Order: sequence, then structure tokens, then C-alpha cells
Amino acid sequence: MSRTPDTWILTAQSPSRLGTVDVVTRFLFEQQCYVTEHHSFDDRLAARFFIRVEFKAPAVFDEAAFRAGLADALAPFDMQMELTAPGYRPKVAIMVSKADHCLNDLLYRQRIGQLPMDVVAVISNHPDLEPLARWHGIPYHHFPLDPHNKPAQEAHVWQVLQDTQAELVVLARYMQVLSPELCRRLDGWAINIHHSLLPGFKGAKPYHQAYQKGVKLVGATAHYVNNDLDEGPIIAQGVESVDHAYYPEDLVAKGRDIECLTLAKAVGYHLERRVFLNANRTVVL
Amino acid sequence: MSRTPDTWILTAQSPSRLGTVDVVTRFLFEQQCYVTEHHSFDDRLAARFFIRVEFKAPAVFDEAAFRAGLADALAPFDMQMELTAPGYRPKVAIMVSKADHCLNDLLYRQRIGQLPMDVVAVISNHPDLEPLARWHGIPYHHFPLDPHNKPAQEAHVWQVLQDTQAELVVLARYMQVLSPELCRRLDGWAINIHHSLLPGFKGAKPYHQAYQKGVKLVGATAHYVNNDLDEGPIIAQGVESVDHAYYPEDLVAKGRDIECLTLAKAVGYHLERRVFLNANRTVVL
Amino acid sequence: MSRTPDTWILTAQSPSRLGTVDVVTRFLFEQQCYVTEHHSFDDRLAARFFIRVEFKAPAVFDEAAFRAGLADALAPFDMQMELTAPGYRPKVAIMVSKADHCLNDLLYRQRIGQLPMDVVAVISNHPDLEPLARWHGIPYHHFPLDPHNKPAQEAHVWQVLQDTQAELVVLARYMQVLSPELCRRLDGWAINIHHSLLPGFKGAKPYHQAYQKGVKLVGATAHYVNNDLDEGPIIAQGVESVDHAYYPEDLVAKGRDIECLTLAKAVGYHLERRVFLNANRTVVL
Amino acid sequence: MSRTPDTWILTAQSPSRLGTVDVVTRFLFEQQCYVTEHHSFDDRLAARFFIRVEFKAPAVFDEAAFRAGLADALAPFDMQMELTAPGYRPKVAIMVSKADHCLNDLLYRQRIGQLPMDVVAVISNHPDLEPLARWHGIPYHHFPLDPHNKPAQEAHVWQVLQDTQAELVVLARYMQVLSPELCRRLDGWAINIHHSLLPGFKGAKPYHQAYQKGVKLVGATAHYVNNDLDEGPIIAQGVESVDHAYYPEDLVAKGRDIECLTLAKAVGYHLERRVFLNANRTVVL
Repeated sequence: MSRTPDTWILTAQSPSRLGTVDVVTRFLFEQQCYVTEHHSFDDRLAARFFIRVEFKAPAVFDEAAFRAGLADALAPFDMQMELTAPGYRPKVAIMVSKADHCLNDLLYRQRIGQLPMDVVAVISNHPDLEPLARWHGIPYHHFPLDPHNKPAQEAHVWQVLQDTQAELVVLARYMQVLSPELCRRLDGWAINIHHSLLPGFKGAKPYHQAYQKGVKLVGATAHYVNNDLDEGPIIAQGVESVDHAYYPEDLVAKGRDIECLTLAKAVGYHLERRVFLNANRTVVL
Repeated sequence: MSRTPDTWILTAQSPSRLGTVDVVTRFLFEQQCYVTEHHSFDDRLAARFFIRVEFKAPAVFDEAAFRAGLADALAPFDMQMELTAPGYRPKVAIMVSKADHCLNDLLYRQRIGQLPMDVVAVISNHPDLEPLARWHGIPYHHFPLDPHNKPAQEAHVWQVLQDTQAELVVLARYMQVLSPELCRRLDGWAINIHHSLLPGFKGAKPYHQAYQKGVKLVGATAHYVNNDLDEGPIIAQGVESVDHAYYPEDLVAKGRDIECLTLAKAVGYHLERRVFLNANRTVVL
Repeated sequence: MSRTPDTWILTAQSPSRLGTVDVVTRFLFEQQCYVTEHHSFDDRLAARFFIRVEFKAPAVFDEAAFRAGLADALAPFDMQMELTAPGYRPKVAIMVSKADHCLNDLLYRQRIGQLPMDVVAVISNHPDLEPLARWHGIPYHHFPLDPHNKPAQEAHVWQVLQDTQAELVVLARYMQVLSPELCRRLDGWAINIHHSLLPGFKGAKPYHQAYQKGVKLVGATAHYVNNDLDEGPIIAQGVESVDHAYYPEDLVAKGRDIECLTLAKAVGYHLERRVFLNANRTVVL
Repeated sequence: MSRTPDTWILTAQSPSRLGTVDVVTRFLFEQQCYVTEHHSFDDRLAARFFIRVEFKAPAVFDEAAFRAGLADALAPFDMQMELTAPGYRPKVAIMVSKADHCLNDLLYRQRIGQLPMDVVAVISNHPDLEPLARWHGIPYHHFPLDPHNKPAQEAHVWQVLQDTQAELVVLARYMQVLSPELCRRLDGWAINIHHSLLPGFKGAKPYHQAYQKGVKLVGATAHYVNNDLDEGPIIAQGVESVDHAYYPEDLVAKGRDIECLTLAKAVGYHLERRVFLNANRTVVL
């Protein structure tokens, strides 16, 4: 599972067709690349093919030529391909409000090297979490929200994402509904954590909804953002048992751990190029 | 957890009030009853008190006098009380359709003594599961359903419940919606297993709904029947991880184990007098 | 995960070497085989390669020629290969003593088609479980054991395995230690369920050991049989939470469910050709 | 589960005897104390009684008189009793080496109020984690260890515990074996996290041991310190699934989350007075 520092990752998807696996593995072999992990899945209901390969390049390796040759080889299969170099660390922006458990957890995992990312910005509609970000040496952007300034506030947010060249946005308990416009722009490269087992308890105060319903399990769902509130493709879900003695605040407390673990898992999968969009679902290889 | 064969169970609930615990424990002590397990819970949001006590009676014990004295003691607290004698085995009717995994599991647990119940009838709208019931020595009642005979069919079902003096009805994947009239009659003494994590995926074909949604966890919910489809008070929920490689039939297969375990757990709690209705929720002590 | 009825399974392992993946996928492509799932893993510490591919053969398919060609292709890689035809159901013998939960569970899963196997014999040192086997239409072989007849008894067991051409032996709570001689003969094709989380609580009465130790989790381990008691390569493990209120008999009861699920999972993996021996460990693809 | 700020906790244990529950509940009632949660357990194998009660005192409440009266009432039952006032926050010392995941987690939970404790000291044999402690405003004591100074080093540690009046010591991945002398002094008020599912993989490098064994589950165990390495009474255990693709460093990474959650759970139970020593086992009410 852990990769040696010289490992490349190749991911691709395409319509299902005879030869999809072979065209990838043959090219890698011809280039003298050593495959260490290979996983492919052909979705027979969606008629779609997904592949993820980890490999080591030979001592002499011309990346540009490799990319060009691979593109040529895959073209007849209408394959969308992504190649990730060893040691590549995506730039990540994290959006928060006042709750800091997910932020604390993500920054900790970055700090010890468990999540291979560079957090380039923490963005919030509140000033509260600036000390935590600063302690980790990360710029903090505070853009207050009021009922009238959402377009302007989101323009500021977008500017930061542009300026920092963020490649992934993590909504780590950002308690605001994004505008459809921003959702559209973030489609496929923003991960949200919702504090319920979707599709149960969409919308506001899911733990209070869960209390009213008397459920015996609570959970959290990490999903890509799309236009439909709490409806984006699910990447990971976590769950824990509860009982009648959990008041709403106890569900909130229990939920913190599940949210942290579920969001960290989803971000980790994304960073390791394990997640593929498959219509409104995901394939995680 | 396991009780010695001479153990009584006393359960009660009442409005919250000073002295509720004391009135129970004092009476038991005065009667020289030895308490082996005591759990009480005061729901501060519902202002309602719940208690469950396991105890051993003294060598000389007049059950009738005990019940009368206890009723007198508890009366000022408006307490609903239930006393279960050692070795009491409730009569249980199980309703099924064609899927037999829950029935097989429940009959197995009865056979080895893990569920202390007497299954007095298996009732179905299909003939398929008769051999399984017969092998366990249990009468099988086949009442076919068509779009026009539901009232008559349910009258037959009700007659069996009356004739057998069933105290608990278990809907072990009975794939029919009960009429509001029958639901009303079964309120509080019938347990259904729904094959999703309620409130997600109510209604028909929940595993297919789950597949479409792309969830990463599937589950099952055991709940008391009430008038509102899939909305009765939840007793137990179970869950397992799944991934993109699970087609709908794989979710169905995975779900079987969760359904069996969740239903058996809920029935066990009910038989051990652990479950209390608390408006539309349950307390499980 | 579920396969269509026309799916072949190819598995292989070999020393690690450049080209191992390619030689398999290229041959399949040249034979016009359509790959539906491919998983390979190169163990960098053991320097060993493992691959499992599910594929569909073309309309015109000469199995003998395919096998011969594949053997030729793989030979330079010192690859051990296994090819499983669509619909193949291995012959399985189940060994039991008096506890019937695992047997009941395995026979149920076979009956509904969840485990694609033909149970050809149930073998026991006690007569108790004959009715259960008979109800499922499976021959029951009762070979009593006493302190002096183990060699003779095991000879009878072996004869049944020979006569039935069993390809897998499942020790479903067979409460006897097999002789080293029989262990040697069963090496790699017999699965045992041990009722603890190995390596904790080896040997006899693991639930009682667990009670004495005061653990908060109990579990079960399914592993291949080898010469060393409770030391064979682990295929699957299961676990559940317990607490102080579980007396030894409660741990035994809780453990039944874990044992059933863990053994069924391991047998399922084996039947689907997912398990590879990797020295004293397993790779499960 | 969450308590209102005016809640007292009463815990006690004694030899099993008729009247143990009654003597507690009667006294509370006579003092007009309102019981919100009551759990008692009579261990029939150990013949020992355990009780934990949460209650609210009346408006007029003389704590000293209450304590004296309670002591008188319980004396005939040989009951060891502990009474915890509302809002009481024990003083806690945390011992660490270089790994900071458990420390980071505990300090975070203290900061947001989830663990009701005052961390009065972080003690380490390495200087590395001082910045983390300082950021939380907690004094850091660095006492280096070499093969010859353990008695002196432990004297320094003990002095800090004395000076800070610590009531609980948490060994949050303190990678040193304490001397028998210090173990003896800490008996019953120090919690250690061991990174395996005890009794499996005692001693050094348990994740590497687990890798060699090829287990499919890894876990962690929080237990009270006593004289016997990794043998103290278990408070909590946690577990997660792993597979063949986890190299030792992956087990280490996976284990961090389990260790954090398991240690936090155990510390929380201790702080809420839920844990009772029962010979070499624990009762957690």
C-alpha cells in the first residue's frame, strides 16, 4: 500500500472495450516500467472501464516522451488518462467555519506526512481558526459572510484558489451552502464532509434529526461537491453505534471522530489518485 | 449478561419524578430479593424514567402477593410495570414471504436456546418455506395474497395469532405492506426488519436504491411496526462496508447477513425485556 | 463482484520480475478474452508477484489450446497458474464435532447459491449432526474417536476425502487436533476456524481464556491448516465488542456469529480463487 | 450520557450481598437527591458488586454531612466509595516519547471540552514535543534517559507528579518500560496504550510482529499500568481491518487512529468514573 519514493501512478478510464487493459500494460512493459500494483474494474452496468497502476520507471526515463507515447497508445480507446509523478504533492485549500476538529485532523496528518499534500490556504467565514492555521504555518483568509455579500465573498474565495493554484478544495465543516456558480466551478475537485449517512438526514442539523428519529447508528459522508446539495458522488462513509443515552450534543461529539476519519480517508484516496467519477457514483481502486 | 435459571426481570417506566428508583429498589429489598443487574435511565428531554432490574427471589416467594404489593408501591408514580418469571418463553409468530435467511437464522437460534422463545407459527403468503418450518416442527400457515383478498388474508393471519396466543410477531422479510388496521393491532408487539439504514432508502428495493446512490455502507434496521411504513421506533441497526464492485445482487447478498444479525439482536432485546417505547424512539437497557 | 455465468478466473503467482503483468494481459488479449476485473500485487518485501483476472472467453474458444498456450507463455516467468472454468463448483468436505452453527451456516449458504460449492460429505467424530446433514441431502460419515484409534479414524476420514474427490476440507468447529500426518496431507486445501483472534488465545477454550484476561473484543480466525497448531496462514478474521457483563457462556454465544461469518468469508474467498499462499501469510485479491 | 453541569457521580464497589443496591438508592432518596442514571452490576463469578449513579443534589445541600452520612450507611457493606462533585476536573500528566499522535489528540479533546481534565504536565524523555505542549499552554518536562540513569530520571518524573498533584498519568506512547518501583506507585491511576490487541503481540514492535504473522485485523489496547508488562487490566480495545497490501509502515499509520481513539475512550471512561478494577479485569459502567 505504501509506495517507495520512486513510484508513479497512472490512472485512466474509458468506455468498456476489448483491449483496454492490454493497451496500458503493454505500453508500460515496452517502456520497461515495473508494475507494483495494478487494479482495473470494468463496470458491466455502466459499460465503463477504470484502471489504476503503480509502477517504477527505468533508470533512463524521458517523461515527456513517455506521456506523448502513452497518449498516442490510449487515443483509440477514448481513454481519459492521468499520470502522477513520484513525490508529487497537490496544493490543497481547506475551507472551514468555526468547528476545528476536521481542520486539526487534516493539518496533523499533513504535518506527519500521512497525507501527501501542501495546504496552501485555510479559508473561513469566521476568524476563529486563524491561530490553528498559523501554528502550522499556513496562510489564513477570513472572508466574512452576511446575507447580502455572498457573491463578493465567493469571489474572494475564488481569487485565493486561483492565486494559490489549489488543485483540491476540502470543505472541512464549512457551514455555508455554496452558490450554484461556485459549485459548478468546483465540480470534481472539491470534497465535502456531511455529518450524516447520506441519503439520510440531508440538510441542516443532521445530528438533531438523527436524535429525533432515534437511530442506533450515526455516520458521516465524504463526497465530491456538485450542484445538488448533499447529493454529490460519495467517496467514503463512516459509522458508529449510539444508543438512547446519547442526547443531541453527544451525537455531535461522537460524530466528530467519524467526520475526521471519513474526511481524511476520502482526501487520502483522492491524493493517491484512487477515486474515479462514474456518473453520480465513484469507483475507488 | 446471561442469567441463572432462577432470575426474574422487572421493567417499568413512568414520568420523571424524585423517588422512582428508590421505590423499586426499596420494595425489592423489603421482599428480600437479590438484585443482580440494575439499569435505570431518566430521559431529561422527554422527562421520562425507565428501569430494568434482574433479581433472584428468596426461597419462599409468593408471586401473587409480590405482584400486588409491587403494584401498590408503584401506583403513586404512575408506573407501567412488567414482571417476567424465570424461564418464561414468549410465544412468537414469524411472518415470511419467499426469502428464508431470517427465518433460517431465527429458527436456528431458537433451536440451540439462544433466543428464549417458542415459535408457535410460521405464516406466509407463499408455500415455499414450509419444509424449513416443518423440519423445525413448527406449524406453517399459507395464506396466499392477491390484489383483492387482503382483508380476508389478514383475517386469517389474525386468527392464527389469536389461536396461538402469540405475544410477539416477527416480520422476517414479509414482503407485503400490512393494512393500517393490522398495523394498529400489532402496535408495540411486532418487529419488522427493513433492509436499509432508515431513514435512508425507505420503501421498495432499498438495495437497488443504494446501488444507484453509490453508498459505501449498507445496513438494516429492526423496528417496531406502527402505522407509518418504515417509520416505527428503531430497536437495532446493523451496517457493513461495500464498494463500487458490489452490483445490486451483491448488496442483496451482503445484506442478508446484516438483516439476520440485526433482526436477531432486536428480537433478543425484546425477549429479554430490554426495549422500552419512548414516544417514537426506543430505550434499550 | 458478482460474475456473469460465463466468467473465467485466472490466478497466478511467481517471483517478482519485469513483465509479469504484461505476459498475462497480452496473452488474454491475443486470445480475444475480455477482462472484467484485474488485480495484481507485487510484494516488495517477499519479492513475489500475485495476479487474479476475471475474463470472458470469445464465442469460439478452445480450452485445451488456451491452457497449452498460456502455460507456454508463463513458463519463462516460473509462474504457478490456475484456471477456473465458468460455473465450476469445487467438491467440499466439512468436518464437525457437536457444535452445529458453522455447519448450519455453510449448508444454508450453499443451498441458496451464495457459496458455489458441492458439499460431498459431512464427517464427524460424533453422531449428533447427522439429521442436519441429511436434511440438506448430504452423506454423513460418523467416525468415533477414542484415545487409541486416531490413526484408524483418520484413515477413514482420508478414505472419504479420496472417495468423494474433495478439493477443499472445511474444519467447521471440528474439535480434534489432527495428526501431523493428516495436517501434512491437507496443507493448503483445508480451512480451519479458530475461535479467537490469533495469535491471542491459541489452544483450548479460547473464550474462557478471553474471559480471564478481561478483553473488550472477541474474535475468530479462519486459516489454512498446516503442521503447527493454530499457526497456519490467516485468510480472514472477525471481531465484536464485548464488556464485563459477558460471562464465558456469553462470549461463546457471541462468538458463534463471528465464527460463522468469518469462516463463510474465508471459504468464499477460497472458492472464488482469491487466496494465494505467500510463505506463512496470505494474499487475498 | 452528557450530564448537566450540576450532576454528581457516586461510584462504589463491595463484596456481593443482599441490600447493596438498596443502601445506596435509599440514602440518595432520603437526601432528596434526584437520580438521572443508575447502573449496577453484580459479578456472580467474582461475587463482587459495582454501582455507578449520576444524581442531582437538592437546592440546599451540605456536602460534608452528605459524605459523612453516606460513609456511615455504606460501612456495614464494606463498600469502597467515591463521590465526584459537579464540574470536577482531575489533574492529568501525560508522558510521551517522540510520537505525537496520541498527545495531539488528547490535547485537542481537552481544548474543546470533550475530555474534562486539566493537563498539568507533559513529561518526555525527548525534547521533540515541547512546541505542541507549549502551544496548548502546558508545561513540558524533558528528562532524558540513558542506560544508566533510569532511577534518577524516574525520580524526576515522580517529583513532577507530586508537584502537580496529578491524579491520572496517561502513557501516550511513552516508549520506555517503567521500573517495577514506578509501576507499583502508579498502580490503578496510570493508563497505557499498547499498539496491539493484547494478549497478542506483547512487547516491542507489535505492528512488525503483526505483519510477520499476516493478521487481517490490527488493534490497540488501553489498560491500567501494573507490574506486569502489557498485562494490566484492560479498559478499552479498538480494531481495524487490514490486508496483505499493508506493509509494516502502513500498519503503523493505520494504528495511529486506532491508538488515538482507544486511548481517548479509556481516558474518558476513567474521567467519568466509569471504570472499576475487578481483580485483573475491569468493569466499565
